[in-house]
Amino acid sequence: MNATFQLHDSPIFVGSLADSFPHWLEAESYSQVFIIADTHTQALCLPVFLEKTGLKPHPNLVVIQPGEGQKNLATCESIWQAMLAANLDRKALVLNLGGGVIGDMGGFCAATWKRGIDFVHIPTTLLAMTDAAIGGKLGVDFQGIKNIIGVFRQPAAVFVDPDFLNTLPERELRSGFAEVIKHALIGERALWEKLTDHHSAKAVLEASIGVKVRIVAEDPQEKGLRMLLNFGHTIGHAIESYFLESDDPLTHGEAIAIGMICELEGSERHKEVAAFLSSIFPHRHIPESAFSAIWGLMQQDKKNASGKVRMALPNGLPYGMKVVEPSREVVVQCLMRNNES
Amino acid sequence: MNATFQLHDSPIFVGSLADSFPHWLEAESYSQVFIIADTHTQALCLPVFLEKTGLKPHPNLVVIQPGEGQKNLATCESIWQAMLAANLDRKALVLNLGGGVIGDMGGFCAATWKRGIDFVHIPTTLLAMTDAAIGGKLGVDFQGIKNIIGVFRQPAAVFVDPDFLNTLPERELRSGFAEVIKHALIGERALWEKLTDHHSAKAVLEASIGVKVRIVAEDPQEKGLRMLLNFGHTIGHAIESYFLESDDPLTHGEAIAIGMICELEGSERHKEVAAFLSSIFPHRHIPESAFSAIWGLMQQDKKNASGKVRMALPNGLPYGMKVVEPSREVVVQCLMRNNES
Repeated sequence: MNATFQLHDSPIFVGSLADSFPHWLEAESYSQVFIIADTHTQALCLPVFLEKTGLKPHPNLVVIQPGEGQKNLATCESIWQAMLAANLDRKALVLNLGGGVIGDMGGFCAATWKRGIDFVHIPTTLLAMTDAAIGGKLGVDFQGIKNIIGVFRQPAAVFVDPDFLNTLPERELRSGFAEVIKHALIGERALWEKLTDHHSAKAVLEASIGVKVRIVAEDPQEKGLRMLLNFGHTIGHAIESYFLESDDPLTHGEAIAIGMICELEGSERHKEVAAFLSSIFPHRHIPESAFSAIWGLMQQDKKNASGKVRMALPNGLPYGMKVVEPSREVVVQCLMRNNES
Repeated sequence: MNATFQLHDSPIFVGSLADSFPHWLEAESYSQVFIIADTHTQALCLPVFLEKTGLKPHPNLVVIQPGEGQKNLATCESIWQAMLAANLDRKALVLNLGGGVIGDMGGFCAATWKRGIDFVHIPTTLLAMTDAAIGGKLGVDFQGIKNIIGVFRQPAAVFVDPDFLNTLPERELRSGFAEVIKHALIGERALWEKLTDHHSAKAVLEASIGVKVRIVAEDPQEKGLRMLLNFGHTIGHAIESYFLESDDPLTHGEAIAIGMICELEGSERHKEVAAFLSSIFPHRHIPESAFSAIWGLMQQDKKNASGKVRMALPNGLPYGMKVVEPSREVVVQCLMRNNES
C-alpha cells in the first residue's frame, strides 16, 4: 500500500492499519518491537492493533498512567528502565500506541535511547492524528513548562487509523478538533469548507494532515514558517499550564481554542472564528488574578528570543504568517476580551 | 583565524583560545552565553578562559561537582533548572568548559533544551581534547550503564587549547593518552611515530584529532567505520563500570588501556602494544569473581545487535576494521591473560 504522505524519509499512512502496518514492518528488519502504551490504550486500542496487524500479544510492553501529568522525566526514567530490562538494542523499533503524551514522550525516550533508535507513532486520538504524531517534535514537560526538554526526530513511519476515533470520549474528540480548525485557519481554504460540510473523518484527517506536512516539509526545525503552527499556542499553552493544577484542567484543544480567540483579537476574522469556536468549545472564565501567572508562563515559550514574547499569526491564506511581539498590556486585553465573550 | 579542522559544519580550532574564540563569537549572533563548568574547571580554567577571551566574568554559570559519578539525569535536571532560571532562549549558546563529563552532559542538556540549542566544547582534559569533544556524541549514564541516554549532535565549534593541559594532574593526562594511543593503533602510522618521538603536545593533538575527524566525517551516526573508535571500549567500558563503585575506581584511560590489551589478545600486535601500554599504565588485577558482572555489563553495549556482543578491532593501517562477536569464554580468557601479564 502506498503511503498517503511522505514527510522527509517518513511515510504517513492514513487508513486501516491492516492495509499498511504488516507490509511495512515486514519490509524493515528490526530486531525487536517494543510497545509503549497507557492504561487506556492498552485496554481499548492494543486489542484492535493486534487484531488488525496480526501481531502476537507482546511481552515487550511498557504501560504508563494516562494524562499530561505523566509527561515528565520521572516517567521517562520508568520507560528507559523498561527498555533496559528488555535489552533493547540499536536495531529495535519502539511503537508509540496512544495520544500526544505517549507519542511525544515515547518518541523522546526512543530518540535518546543509545543515542537514538527508530520509532513509529500509532496515534489513537484526533489530536495526535492531526498534530502531535506529524512532524518529529518530541519531548516532555519540566517544572510545569510544556515540552521544554526534547529533540526533533522524525518517526520511521506514522499510521493514522480513523477507527481509533471510535474509542474516544466526546470531549477528547473536540480537543483534537481545535488543531484541525487551526490547520484550516492557517492553511488551505478547502479544509475550512470540509469542516462545515459533512465529510468523512478520513477526508478531514487527510486534509488536516496535509496542511501540517506541507509546513513541516518546508521548515522541519522551526526556523521560519513552522512557527505558524504555534498560532493559538502562545497564549493557549500558558492558559493550559495555568489550569493544569486546578480542579478542572482544560483539555489541550479547549486551551488552544481560547488561545486562538485571544490571538485573533483585532483581526478581521476574529468575529467569525470566535463564533465558530464558541459553538464547539465551552466558555472558560480566566480570573484576573491569573493574568500575571499566565504572562509569566508565556515568558517560557520556546519561540521567544532576547527576552521578548513572540506570537505567530495567520496573515492571509494559504500559509501567510506575521510574527508579533505583544506587550503584557496587549495580552491582558486579549484575556479580558475572552472573559467578556 | 582559520580552523584546523572542519567536521561537517563545525570548525575545530587547535591553538590558543585568544586567537580563535573572540573572533568566532563575534561573527555569530547569540542572545546569551551560558557556561557549564565543574568546581575544578571553575577554579583552574575559567580564569584562564576569561583572560584569554576578554569575556567579562559571567552570571550565567552553572557549576557542578566533578567526576563521572555526576554524569546522570539528576545532574541534568539541575543544569536544566539553571537554564530555566537564566531564561535561556533558542538563540542562546551553551559553553561546556571541562572534560568529557561536562562536554557529554552539557552538550546533552543543550541538545535537548527547547529541542536543541547551540553549544561549544572547550575541552580542558587531554581525553576530551582528543576524543570526547570531537564527533557529536552526547549523553549521560543511567543505572550504571555508560552513555545509554543521549543523542548525536555536532557542537557549533570546538576550541582545543593545549595550555589547559598544564592544569591536569599526571594521572588525568595519562588517562587521555590512552585515546591518543588508540587513534594511533586504528588510524595513521605517523601518529604512532609521533608518540615515541618527542613532538609538541599541539602536534600530537592535531594528529590524534585528525584521526577522529577522518572517521566521524565518514560515518557520523556510527553505522559502520565509526565502530572502530570503540576499539578497547567493549571490554574497557565494562571494566570501568565494574570498578566505578569500588574504593579505587579506574580512570577511563586506565580501563581502556586494559580493554585494548584484552581485545588484542591473539592478534600479531598484541605483544608490542601490551608492552607499550604496560610501560605507561599501572597494572590492575581483575578478580575472577568479577568476570560474570563484566560479561553482564558488556551485554549492555550500544554496538550489540540481536543479543550478541560485538567488538570492533583494528585490521591493518590505515583504518582497517573487523567486527567480531566474542563468546563469554573468549572474554573470560582475555581477562585472565590481563591478570597474568
